[in-house]
Formats: sequence, structure tokens, C-alpha cells
Amino acid sequence: MKKPEPVAVQDERPTEFPLFDTHIPCLGVPKVESPIQRTVLFTRDGRQVEKSFVSDNERVLVYDSLDYLKQLAPGEMPLMFELAGPREKVYFDSAKVHCAIATCGGLCPGTNDVIRAIVLELYHLYKVRHIFGVRYGFQGFIPRYGHDLMTLGPEEVVNIHSFGGTILSSSRGHQNIAEIVDALERLNVRILFLIGGDGTLRAADKICEEITARDLRISVIVIPKTIDNDIPLVSRSFGFDTAVEMATDAIRAAHTEALGAPNGIGLVKLMGRYSGFVAANAALALREVNFVLIPESDFDLDGDCGLLTNLENRLRERNHAVIVVAEGAGQKFFKEEELPRDPSGNIKPGDIGMLLVERIQAYFRAKGMEINLKYIDPSYIIRSMPANYNDRIYCGFLGQNAVHAGMAGKTAMLVSRWHGHYVHVPIKATVGKTKEVNLDSPLWRSVLESTGQPPLKN
Amino acid sequence: MKKPEPVAVQDERPTEFPLFDTHIPCLGVPKVESPIQRTVLFTRDGRQVEKSFVSDNERVLVYDSLDYLKQLAPGEMPLMFELAGPREKVYFDSAKVHCAIATCGGLCPGTNDVIRAIVLELYHLYKVRHIFGVRYGFQGFIPRYGHDLMTLGPEEVVNIHSFGGTILSSSRGHQNIAEIVDALERLNVRILFLIGGDGTLRAADKICEEITARDLRISVIVIPKTIDNDIPLVSRSFGFDTAVEMATDAIRAAHTEALGAPNGIGLVKLMGRYSGFVAANAALALREVNFVLIPESDFDLDGDCGLLTNLENRLRERNHAVIVVAEGAGQKFFKEEELPRDPSGNIKPGDIGMLLVERIQAYFRAKGMEINLKYIDPSYIIRSMPANYNDRIYCGFLGQNAVHAGMAGKTAMLVSRWHGHYVHVPIKATVGKTKEVNLDSPLWRSVLESTGQPPLKN
Amino acid sequence: MKKPEPVAVQDERPTEFPLFDTHIPCLGVPKVESPIQRTVLFTRDGRQVEKSFVSDNERVLVYDSLDYLKQLAPGEMPLMFELAGPREKVYFDSAKVHCAIATCGGLCPGTNDVIRAIVLELYHLYKVRHIFGVRYGFQGFIPRYGHDLMTLGPEEVVNIHSFGGTILSSSRGHQNIAEIVDALERLNVRILFLIGGDGTLRAADKICEEITARDLRISVIVIPKTIDNDIPLVSRSFGFDTAVEMATDAIRAAHTEALGAPNGIGLVKLMGRYSGFVAANAALALREVNFVLIPESDFDLDGDCGLLTNLENRLRERNHAVIVVAEGAGQKFFKEEELPRDPSGNIKPGDIGMLLVERIQAYFRAKGMEINLKYIDPSYIIRSMPANYNDRIYCGFLGQNAVHAGMAGKTAMLVSRWHGHYVHVPIKATVGKTKEVNLDSPLWRSVLESTGQPPLKN
Amino acid sequence: MKKPEPVAVQDERPTEFPLFDTHIPCLGVPKVESPIQRTVLFTRDGRQVEKSFVSDNERVLVYDSLDYLKQLAPGEMPLMFELAGPREKVYFDSAKVHCAIATCGGLCPGTNDVIRAIVLELYHLYKVRHIFGVRYGFQGFIPRYGHDLMTLGPEEVVNIHSFGGTILSSSRGHQNIAEIVDALERLNVRILFLIGGDGTLRAADKICEEITARDLRISVIVIPKTIDNDIPLVSRSFGFDTAVEMATDAIRAAHTEALGAPNGIGLVKLMGRYSGFVAANAALALREVNFVLIPESDFDLDGDCGLLTNLENRLRERNHAVIVVAEGAGQKFFKEEELPRDPSGNIKPGDIGMLLVERIQAYFRAKGMEINLKYIDPSYIIRSMPANYNDRIYCGFLGQNAVHAGMAGKTAMLVSRWHGHYVHVPIKATVGKTKEVNLDSPLWRSVLESTGQPPLKN
Repeated sequence: MKKPEPVAVQDERPTEFPLFDTHIPCLGVPKVESPIQRTVLFTRDGRQVEKSFVSDNERVLVYDSLDYLKQLAPGEMPLMFELAGPREKVYFDSAKVHCAIATCGGLCPGTNDVIRAIVLELYHLYKVRHIFGVRYGFQGFIPRYGHDLMTLGPEEVVNIHSFGGTILSSSRGHQNIAEIVDALERLNVRILFLIGGDGTLRAADKICEEITARDLRISVIVIPKTIDNDIPLVSRSFGFDTAVEMATDAIRAAHTEALGAPNGIGLVKLMGRYSGFVAANAALALREVNFVLIPESDFDLDGDCGLLTNLENRLRERNHAVIVVAEGAGQKFFKEEELPRDPSGNIKPGDIGMLLVERIQAYFRAKGMEINLKYIDPSYIIRSMPANYNDRIYCGFLGQNAVHAGMAGKTAMLVSRWHGHYVHVPIKATVGKTKEVNLDSPLWRSVLESTGQPPLKN
Repeated sequence: MKKPEPVAVQDERPTEFPLFDTHIPCLGVPKVESPIQRTVLFTRDGRQVEKSFVSDNERVLVYDSLDYLKQLAPGEMPLMFELAGPREKVYFDSAKVHCAIATCGGLCPGTNDVIRAIVLELYHLYKVRHIFGVRYGFQGFIPRYGHDLMTLGPEEVVNIHSFGGTILSSSRGHQNIAEIVDALERLNVRILFLIGGDGTLRAADKICEEITARDLRISVIVIPKTIDNDIPLVSRSFGFDTAVEMATDAIRAAHTEALGAPNGIGLVKLMGRYSGFVAANAALALREVNFVLIPESDFDLDGDCGLLTNLENRLRERNHAVIVVAEGAGQKFFKEEELPRDPSGNIKPGDIGMLLVERIQAYFRAKGMEINLKYIDPSYIIRSMPANYNDRIYCGFLGQNAVHAGMAGKTAMLVSRWHGHYVHVPIKATVGKTKEVNLDSPLWRSVLESTGQPPLKN
Repeated sequence: MKKPEPVAVQDERPTEFPLFDTHIPCLGVPKVESPIQRTVLFTRDGRQVEKSFVSDNERVLVYDSLDYLKQLAPGEMPLMFELAGPREKVYFDSAKVHCAIATCGGLCPGTNDVIRAIVLELYHLYKVRHIFGVRYGFQGFIPRYGHDLMTLGPEEVVNIHSFGGTILSSSRGHQNIAEIVDALERLNVRILFLIGGDGTLRAADKICEEITARDLRISVIVIPKTIDNDIPLVSRSFGFDTAVEMATDAIRAAHTEALGAPNGIGLVKLMGRYSGFVAANAALALREVNFVLIPESDFDLDGDCGLLTNLENRLRERNHAVIVVAEGAGQKFFKEEELPRDPSGNIKPGDIGMLLVERIQAYFRAKGMEINLKYIDPSYIIRSMPANYNDRIYCGFLGQNAVHAGMAGKTAMLVSRWHGHYVHVPIKATVGKTKEVNLDSPLWRSVLESTGQPPLKN
Repeated sequence: MKKPEPVAVQDERPTEFPLFDTHIPCLGVPKVESPIQRTVLFTRDGRQVEKSFVSDNERVLVYDSLDYLKQLAPGEMPLMFELAGPREKVYFDSAKVHCAIATCGGLCPGTNDVIRAIVLELYHLYKVRHIFGVRYGFQGFIPRYGHDLMTLGPEEVVNIHSFGGTILSSSRGHQNIAEIVDALERLNVRILFLIGGDGTLRAADKICEEITARDLRISVIVIPKTIDNDIPLVSRSFGFDTAVEMATDAIRAAHTEALGAPNGIGLVKLMGRYSGFVAANAALALREVNFVLIPESDFDLDGDCGLLTNLENRLRERNHAVIVVAEGAGQKFFKEEELPRDPSGNIKPGDIGMLLVERIQAYFRAKGMEINLKYIDPSYIIRSMPANYNDRIYCGFLGQNAVHAGMAGKTAMLVSRWHGHYVHVPIKATVGKTKEVNLDSPLWRSVLESTGQPPLKN
């Protein structure tokens, strides 16, 4: 598996404007009247308003800055996303359509909220009555694993948002694409909702190709799930808000521990294999951090400008220090061939947390300087939390818009929020790419101001 | 005082595109080199990047939809906001400038975070050493109240974000504009940071006019504060996120109470004098609400389609019901001349919560039907909470950008977040207007789907 | 209904030692071998220990002070409680016994935990398979209300502790005792678990008398539920811990509000019809309260030593004040004949919160002194919370010991925790009595120290 | 250092009743009138009550069971504790006395609350004006470390309970006893308050001996701090309640992780070097645990009855499992000579968490069975939390009673809560002993019932 390539559509202030395909494929012309009820609303002053549908022609700009508009050729249309939402005509007949939902990869707060929203929207709004839950991710499609399907309806999902994790369970690792599509055919699934991250997008891309090759009419809609918030063209992935909230608790603990002992050092490892969004945001929420180390920013350990000397200076001045490190930071300190791989075949990043523990302890032991290092790794606690209210609302909208898209016959796409709008993004536009923290963005500038950390490079 | 007029720049999907002035006044040409340190950063692959400043020419679109672009005349520039951020040249000399901060109106989570961010940014980044806190809002400028000033620096603000409210205290009510400007002159204040809502914007507008009339060089920067989230051209006001989170707890309580007794009714009154954003979002976060009543949507109590009959039907079917009402809803049931006014002269909305309690009890008493109505008004508990992490990060950015703007000599403006960017908005563009829930937006459509509530109009 | 009489067995340091009957009735001699599995345990050093049963002869002292022992006549046995726990022989045959559970009165955190513990203990430990949930309290026994029974087993209760309230729902008000016992006979119930407070104890007492009169073999076990913590011979009632925790949040809000405005007054009304335990403990947890008003302590409003003058002095000195009032305080300011009654016929206490609001506002209006009074009544939010972990563990033990007692044929008793032991208390010993805050106890002394409040009496 | 010996005065239901000295030494006869204000209180019915002092003769029983009383010889007095509380006469003159406070050992929730209570009680009630904070534990007494003293008063402690850790900072490791007493003499300290655990009790014991040898009049009062709750004759140590609450969150996470993947295993390591109280209580609070491993209970890993086989059976039946292990469990699997020591010279327990991770992974790898093991160690996050409300109230009482004792000239004692009373316990009665979970107590029986775990011994 290739490491995903970084992508410039990043954080709030892109300096380049990459092109990509914004066209969303559709299985065919939607001709069925939407079963969504038409309602009349009454404004403050009693005026009637009709609740409307979203037209397939509604678009929002991908880049909304003057700099971008200036670089367009005369008459050239800017890059735009299709707006998500309920369509007046849909592609599938509610009475007949079979839908399936699967969750893949690691746990993420809000997954159950997305499942719940999809099920309730299918059931109540579109009156769909055949909804299956596929258990243990892609394993659930492969007969030899022997996982049963779950039948999903309002009763099965009524309280699931009170709990973290996923009621469908999940798994990692590749499965045979042809076998997955065999299962979709066998089960007569017409809309497949996949909740997953980078690996899932890759698999979804291939599933769509196989579906096309077999000339099937199956819609595949992805709701992007990554606690690292590293999927490009998705401004914030669900669960990220909850993750940052929980991460601040870990940092608070590290700060308290650092203050509580002579030359106390609190070291917190946070999620972020390729991108430091969790680390950067959590550091901003609790401005007690002195060093934030993320994959996007190179740093040295040794030397006059390296982390260790800077840490020593900080301790000599203030007697305590707090370090936050994203799990993917400092990978240059590891040799790729020595690193383990996860069941999906992804190279697991070297354990930068343990490496820092060892290097810091060795450094101060050599100096004969007493330190008290406390290392906190809260990842599993964070991942398994139920979503906070903000993610909960967000998951609701993601699930609803996924259903609108699927029912309208859209496919090979993911549901995203972009500049406050829910939009359709083609899987091809994001697959294999990673959203990164832009070092020259307000976010990272603010982290540097808050920590006061120097470049940490010789 | 006039009731503010609703404005169409509302919620995510405007159908009209109103024009307004986006020009930000500046006190003069900034000629002073910014004291912000220039740093070199190192990317993942060791490449050097320079942390840059924001140019005064950077702009972002106000409306980013295709529909808007289509209606522009050929060659016509779309409406754009000035981008916030640090400028390379500033207007004030850090060594000499005196700054003042005041907080006005009701409590709102995050106020202390904004104060803290302003103080830390002024002190650490711009090396400003004369920062005053004005106590009890505009009262603090008026000598006869006898409120002392506070001197603010890092030590005074280090932990204030752990507590709700405002360390400067606040007050409501008008004060004499000339006396306020007299105080600014007397105290030699060159940048005034005001944290406040609708009334504060109105006062700030007049203060700016008085400053201009006296030909003074004083910058006035507003950080908009409204727990109702009803200031136009501000996509989300700080504290709103925390407020919705806390409001969901109240709704959860109401739901539990409703389930716990025969024909239980849980009724929750939430903040929202002119706009139902808190009520709508909280209802979405905890999808246990059956009726959401907001100022923007007209409804009847009596009659076959009115609330009471619908409530009875709900109880007969399901034995319990949850109602969420924004404080400004149903004002047609009150006579304006009978309503009290707050110290700022604003008409206080009629107490729709108590009116509903009385009308519901009377209705079922008349029917001889046992009900158990529990009325919850969590407003004071919500307002006085410390900010959650999300608001905390947001407040940090607002405070920082307010300082960047003030130091650059910008004035008569407020700091806003728009489509993910921090921007400068002229006070004149928002004063006297109110942001409203668009009934035909994804937000309200989603509320209606989630509650299943009918139009409630005969 | 008579107001319950106060009882001297109160708070930690009784000055009198009242006598009462500590004999627990049993339906007959338990002859059935307990189905509880006998296990061998292994200590740290590998030694075997056998898990033992509790003997019917195990007793713990009611009063454990030297002063009490001294007043005993030579040879006189001190007052003792029977120890709760599993017996080696039980009275009922697990295979045949039918059990019922009902919840009565207002909501209280932990009720679902008690239900869950009873069901799991009956099911898993005693292998009982006939467990019914009676809905809406005593209403559920009366056919004309038409409430269905619930069948309870592990699946029905697996997650209920995550939610507040009671899955059985509750009701207030008297029901005909004979009809209730008719229902027990009709349903063949042999053990009735009642979760309720003062009124439930009274009803349980009469139900036991009726059962005796009819010469039935039905065990009635009460798990005492009172958020006010006012049942005598129960050192802490379940849910009380959660209630105090939530109450401190309301006080924190009141304190923040008081600080946030000129002459701010935060007034919080807390639960406590006859006893001020919630108010006293919450005031201790958040030592920001200036006046605590409880039913046990008389106070004046007017006059030089009254509350209002003291409040004014406080405001003149410190500009803000926080008052906590238990709902049953200051009842002398109301005329009993003017007060409403609840469905159980209990006189509802006069609304001391609103009375204080009116009197405080009138007092300062008359003085022409600007105040900002914020009144918070968090009762419904508190009552409907899920239990915190401490109450959760406690509820588990209460439910388990209730089951042990019922299976052993004990009856007319409640389960209590006393000096760290779980014990059996005869209903007759507590019915119609109220536990009170002892004004000369460490608890109240500590409140007075913390608030610095004077006697508030002329 | 010797491992402390287990002691039979354990958990709720002792089967043996060990003897120990309950006599509390006093520096001399208290002759000074207490500066505590005498107040008159007014009961509900307007009757006057005087707030009283506690007499030195007030005693409460150590053992309150019938079994204990029966074994007393005729006329023999039972074992009793001195009751804590304010005395009418005190030993020290408030105007002159100097007091010092130090915190030793690891962090524990509530430490700042105890400091705050001591300072406020000394300052407000006893009008003491010389209060020092000693920094970094016993290091702060030793000049060569160069730690400054803090001056403590109401302003310094007003908000410290909002934060975890200790404002005095702490340290581990032995310091020279004579040097400590030298410092007490040099600083003219007359009352020394020590907040610490087992090691601190040992040091305090020796400090008292040195004070006696030098014939000084210095009172030493210990407030016992152990997050493990393992100090004998202390029914619950402060911070324990908070620790269990936080531990349940970690278990909830482990359970969610276990459910989320094929054959998921959640493994949580909790505090508890010699005693499993945290593990046992947390398992009860969240009844989702399948195996609880504590130091008091021997278990095997291998063999038909060992943990690994039982774990496999559980996975084959239910596909997931949750294990909670106290850090001191399973020490037989380590060789003492290979274990590291902490700075105090205590042998650090072998890392049972990592050992279980390795053994479990090896076991299932050998079987070719896919498992997903998630290991959570939340100790640092738990230790550094602020106290929950329940601990907060408790810490208040501990601090107050420590001050009452110190001012009365008591010494060589610790403050404890016993059967609901605050009492004085001689240091000699607890030093070098450890409170343990009684395997035949309601606590452990309830854990076994809740987990259903077998003896895990071949």
C-alpha cells in the first residue's frame, strides 16, 4: 500500500488551487416522485412558504477567495461542488429498494449517530423497509467469516447514539472486491452506505469500478470517517470535534502532572497518522502546551535547536513542560523496514511516544538532572466516546444527505460539509490523498504563538 | 428602541442576496513594522516555509453559490469580505498604545476566553503593556458609577477561561455616548475592544460616529456576543456551541420527566429572543422533541391544527410529549403595551413559557384529562457555563483577530467567521438587523423531519 | 395527611437515642437450599477461602458512641440492626416464585439501577424466571387505569442505567390498599419490591397489614427512594449523591451570574421539603454560598437581623451574593390553608423561591438600589439525571440485598445502609418520621463556617 | 523498605478484630479559650440551640458488630476512637502559632481541597496568620534543593479546588528526618500538616519520634492520601471516589472497543499496588467487566482453569471480553530482584498490564485465532483530575478536623472517617499496614456475581 500523497486543499487558506473532477455519477435519470411529504410553513408574520427540494443544478464554489477568482480565464467556470439535499425525483422505488450499511476501520465517535440517521431517514422519510446492517466491516460480506446480517429499523437504533463505537462492529484489512460485489448481488442491495476512512474510500472506488464492469445499478455512498480529520475536501470529519474535546482532558492531566513534581514533563500522544489536526486543535483549546509535534512539521531531537535542548531550557526556566505529539510525527527517526503493519497492510507509524520517552529519559539521565516524565496515550478512550452534541447534529446531517444522495441514484461519492454547505464529492477526487495542516495557516500560526515553540531545527 | 429587522443573510442557503457595504474604515496608513516575530517553518520533508502576513487585499466571497455568481453583471465584482489576520505594517506603536476591553449585556460562555486571548495577544505578540479592563460594561466609563478600572496582563487572565461569566462583569442599559468618548480621551485609549451583542453594536456605531466627529484616532473593534446566534454576517457566535450542548441536557431531562409519569409533558424554554437557532439545534442534537416553537415560525394554540389539539393527539398515542420553545416564540399572544422592558430599554418578550404552562393546564383540566407537566427554564445555568473546547478555540481566534485588526488601525468593525475564514465586517452592515432561521433551510427541514410536527396553523 | 414528625436519629451525632422496634418479620422458616453457587476463593498467598453466607444472627449496633453504651443498664443489649446479605436457606422456591417491582413518587437518579440490580440478581443468582414490572406506580395494580405489566429479564434491563427516570414510569397519589392486594393475589406475586419514599412506606405498611389480615405469604421489601435524603435510619438514600453533584452546578451558575452584574444576587431553590440535606451539602461542595436556608432552621426576612438587611450589607460590602434555599424552608411565611396539595394529598410547600424573589425585589426597589437577581430552580433537571457512579454502586447493593431479603422470606422491611453495613430496617420504625439536619452537627456547623451567615433571627 | 503487611481491619465485615493502641498523644493541656465564635441557632419551631464543642471524652466504637461485643470480657471496654471536632480549649495561641503544610507522593484528586480547607479554617475560624506551604514534599524542608516556601492565605487558595494536582507540588523519596525537624525548628513551625500516604505516615512517625527526642512542642497531623484506598482504619481515603468515577470511563471505553472488532478484548490497568479497591468498585459501577484481577486474589494464567483458557471460552461464546487488572495483581509472575524501584525506594510492582498483553497475544497467536486487544492505562489522567463534589465535601471535613486537632495540641495522628464519624487515629496504629479487599465481603462477592468469573486457579 502506498502512503497517501499530501494534498494542497487543506486548511482554510490554500495557496495553490488544485484541479480535480467534481462530476458526480448517477445511475440513471431519477423518475420516481420523491415520497418526502410536501409541507407548507408559516413565517413569523403568517406568510406561507413551501419547503423546497434541492435542484441538481445547485452548486457552491470550492475556492471562495478573490485570489482564486482572479486566476480564472475569462468565461472560465470556477470549480464547484454539487449541493446535497432531497431531490424532487428519486431513482429508486422506496417500496422495493434494499439498502445496506457497513462500518470499517477504527472506532470514531458519532458512527452510531450516522447509522441511526441513515436508518431513520430511510425508514421515516423514504418509507424504505429493507435495511441491513453488515457486521464487522467488509468481513461481513464474505461468507467464510460467518457473520450474520442485522435487520435495521427504528427500534434497533433508537438509543444507539448514547453509546460509543458501532453497533455493527468493524474490522480492518482488505477483502476481495469481487466477493463483496457478489454479496451485494446476492443480497439484492441497491444502495450501499459505507462509513469509513482512507482505506474504505480506496475499496469503495474499486467496488464502484467492479459494479460498472458488471453493469449493475448499485449506488455506493461513503460517509467519510477519520478521527484524524485528514480526508481532503471534507472540512471537518465527524467525531473530530469530540476527539479534540477529549484530547484536551488528556493535556490538562499532563499539565497537572507536570506541575506536580520537580521538573515535571507531561507528554501526550494523540491521534494523527499523517496530519496533526487533533494535536494542533487540542493544543489551542488548552493553552498550556509548550511543544506540539506533528507529521507536517520536521523537527530535530538533538543539537542546539533540537527538542531536547529546548526542553531542558524550558525546565530550567519554568520547572515543568508539556509536549503534545501526533502519532505520525517524527517518522524520520524510524526505519520503514523495521515498522510493523496493521491487518489492512498499512505501515504502522513508529511509536514516536515511546521513542520520545526513551530519548528524553536518556538525555536527562546523562545530564544527571532529575525529571519526572509522565506519558499519556488516551487514544482508545477518545475513539470510543459517544459523540458530543456538535458531532451528533453533524452526523445527523451527514446521514440524511447520504440517504438523499443514494435515493437519487448518485454513486461513487462521499458526503461532505464544505464552507457550511453539505455537498457531494466524487470518491476519485479524494482517494489516496491526505489533508494536511498548512504550516502557514491561521491554525498553525496560532499554535506557534500559543506555545512559543521555536522551529526545533538545526 | 426598534425591534431589529430580520435579514436574509441567514442560514446556509439564502434565497436572496442582499447588498451591504463591505468596506472597512482604517484610521490611517499603517506604517509601523509589525512587532510579530518572523519565523521560518520546516515542512514534513525539511523544506523551509516562511510564516506570512495577511495582505489587505485578500478577500473572500460573501455568497459562494452558483446562483449568486449567475446574477452578477458581466465584469461585476461579487460581494467580498476583507480577510482578518496579522498585517505586515501596523498603525499603532506597541510601546505607546493604550487598549481597553469592556463586556456588555448578558452572560455568554466564552467571554473570558475572548478577554484572555485579547490580553495575551496584545501582551505577548505585540508587546503592548497598557491594557485596561473596564468594569460593568458601559457603566465603567461613566465616573458617577464609581467602578474602578482593572489592569490586565498575563497573570490576571491565566486561569479565567476555567470560569464562566466575565471577570470584567457586565451591565445592561444605555449610557451617554459623549461621556463614553470623554472617558476614552481621558484614559488615552487608542483601541477599544467591545464584547457585546445587538445593543453593543448600536452603541459602538454611535461611538464611532462621535470619534469621527471629534476627529480622534481611536479604533473600535467589536467581538460579537450573542448566545442566540442572531447577528447577521456571523456564521456562529461564540458561546452558541456551548449553549446548545447545555440545552440538550435540559431537553434530555424534560424527556425523562415526560416518560416518568402518566401523560407526562416536558416543556423547555430556551434562549432566542428573535431567532430560534438554539432551540432548533438542541432539538436536532437530542431527537426526542415533538414540538419546536421558534419566533420565525407562526403557530396557533387553539383550533384543530393548533398546538393543544396536536399535543392531545400525541399524548393519546404515545402517553408523553416534549416541547421546546424559544423565548421569543408566540409573541402574537401578548400585547406589546403590557410587556416590561429591560434596563437597556429593550422590550422583554412576553413569557411564552409560563403562557404555555397555563394554556396547557387549562386545556387538559377542561378535558378532565390527567397530565403531568414539567417546565424547565435552564437559561441562567446555560449562560454562565465556561465555554466548551470548541468555543474556546473559536474565542481564541476571535480575540487574536480582533487584536490584529485593532493594531492595524481598522475600526468600526466586528470580527466574524464566515465560511471557515476569519473576516472583518463593518458594524454598519449588521447593526439593527437580525439573523433568522430560514424556514426552507436544511436546518429547519431537519427539525421538522425529526419532530414530525405539522404546521400548527389553522 | 399528617406532616411527618421529625426524628432524632439524624445526622451523625445524635444527642438523644430513641428506641424503636428492630425486629424484622419473616413469612416462615426458610428451608430451601439457596441456589447461590458456593465458590472457593484464593487469597494473595494461595490460601483457600470459602465465600460465606450471612447468618440471621449477625447484628450491628444502631448507636456506636460511648455515650450510648454508658446509658445502657447492666446486661441490657444495645439496639441492633439485622445484617443484610445472602442466607444459606431461603423461603421461596426459585422455580415457582413470582416477583413484581413498582416505582412510586417523583423521579430520582438511580431508580433504573435498582430495578436492574433486582432483576439481574433474581435472574442470574436465584434463577427466578417470573419477574414483572408494574407500570406507573400503584396505578399499575388498579385495573381501571389499564396499564399493562412489563415482563422483565436481563435483556429488558441491560442498558437502562444509562438513562435517568424509571423504565416502569411512576405516579403519585393514593390507591386503594385492598385493590392492590387483590392484584398481588391475582398475579400470584410472592415478593413485591417497592421503590419509593415516605408515601410508599406508608402504603407498604398498610399493604403488609392487609396481607397479614388475609393470611397471605407475600413478602414486601421497600428500597427507600427520596432525593431529599430524609428517611430516618437510612444514612444516605440513593440518588442523593447525584443530586448534590448536580445542585453544585446550579450554585456555580448562580455565583457566576451574581458576579456578572452590578449587585448581582444568585438565588437557587433546591429539593428538600422537610430536610435541608441537599442544600447543606451542595453549599459545602461549592463554598461560594452566603446564605443557606433550610426547613430545620428558623429565620426572619425583616428586621435588623433578618435576611434582607443581611443581604443588603453583603451587597454593600462585596457587590454580589448567593442564596441557597431548600423548598421547604420558611414555611411560616405561608398560610397552610392557602397552599395547594399534590395528587397524593400531601400539602405542597409554599413556593419559598418565588416569595424570596418578590420580597428581595420589593425591598431593594423601596431602597432605590439597583440589583440584578437571577433565580434558578434546577429541580427537574436534577431529578431526571442518570445516577453517578457512586450512586450506581450503591443502587447495585441495595437491589441485591433487597432480593436476598425477599428470597429469605423477610417482609415489612426496607433495605438500608448504616455505618457502612447493609441492614434490614422494619418499615414501622421509619414510617411517618423524617430525618432532619441536626443544627448542632458537624454538617450544619460546617455550613455556618463556610457561609459566615449569622442566625438571621431578630 | 519492607512491603507493608496486610491488616485484617479491612472492608466492612472483618472476621477478626485486631487490637491496636487508640490513644492520641497531646502536646500538653489545652488552656487557651478557642477563638471559634459561639453561635445560637434557631430550630424549625424557633427554639434556641447552642452550637457546641466536642469533648475529649467522646468516643465511637471501632467494631460495631454483635460478634465483637460478645467476645469482650465482662466489664472490658471495647476499642474506641476519639471523636474529631472543635475543642472548647485549644493548646496554641492563634496570634502566635506558625503552621506549615506539605504534600507528598503521587497526585490524588482533592489534595488542593484539603490544602484550601486547612488554610481557610486556620485563617477564618482560628484567626491564624502564619501559614506556609512547603513545596515539593519533604524536599521543601531541605535547604540544598533550594525550593522557596509559599505564604498561604485565603487569596492564594480561593480557586485552587477547580484544578487537579497540588499547588504545593510534591515529590517522592526519603529525606533526612533530622534535617526536616531542623527546618521545623528554624521556621518556628508549631503545627505541621502532612498530606500523604504510606511513606508519609512512616516519615511522620519518625518525625514525631525525633520531635519527642528533642523535647519540642510541635504537632504533626496527617491527612491520609492514597488513591488506592489502602490505609487501614480509614474507611475511604479522599480522591478515591473521583478515581473510581474516572476509572469507569476507562472501562466503558474498553467495553466499547471490545465490542467494535472481531474477538475484541478490552484490558484496563487501574491503580492498586497492594489493594484492589479501585478495580473492584469500578467494575461494580459499570457491570460490563468479565475478569477482575486484584492483588488480594491469587490467579493462574495457564492451565484449564487459568485466565487464558477462560478468556478463550468467553470469546468463543460472546466474541468480546473486558478485563480489569489492578497494577499490583499477579506479582507472582515477576521475580522481585528484576523489578525497578521508585525514588522512595519502594519496589515498583512488575507491569502486569504489559505482561498480560504479551501473554494474551502469544496465546491466541499460537492458536491462530484473530483477536483485537486494546490496552488502556488511564492512571495519570485519573490522578490529576480535580475532585468530584463528594470528595470535595469530604476533603473539607478532613481539613477542618485536622485543624481542630492540631490547634488542640493533638499529635502523631491522622484524621479519618469511620462509620460516618470523623475520628483521630494514632499514626502508630496504621503505619506499615495495608487495608485489603476482604474476599469474603459483600464487595468482592458482588464483583464475583457481576463478572461471573470462576476462581481462575488450577
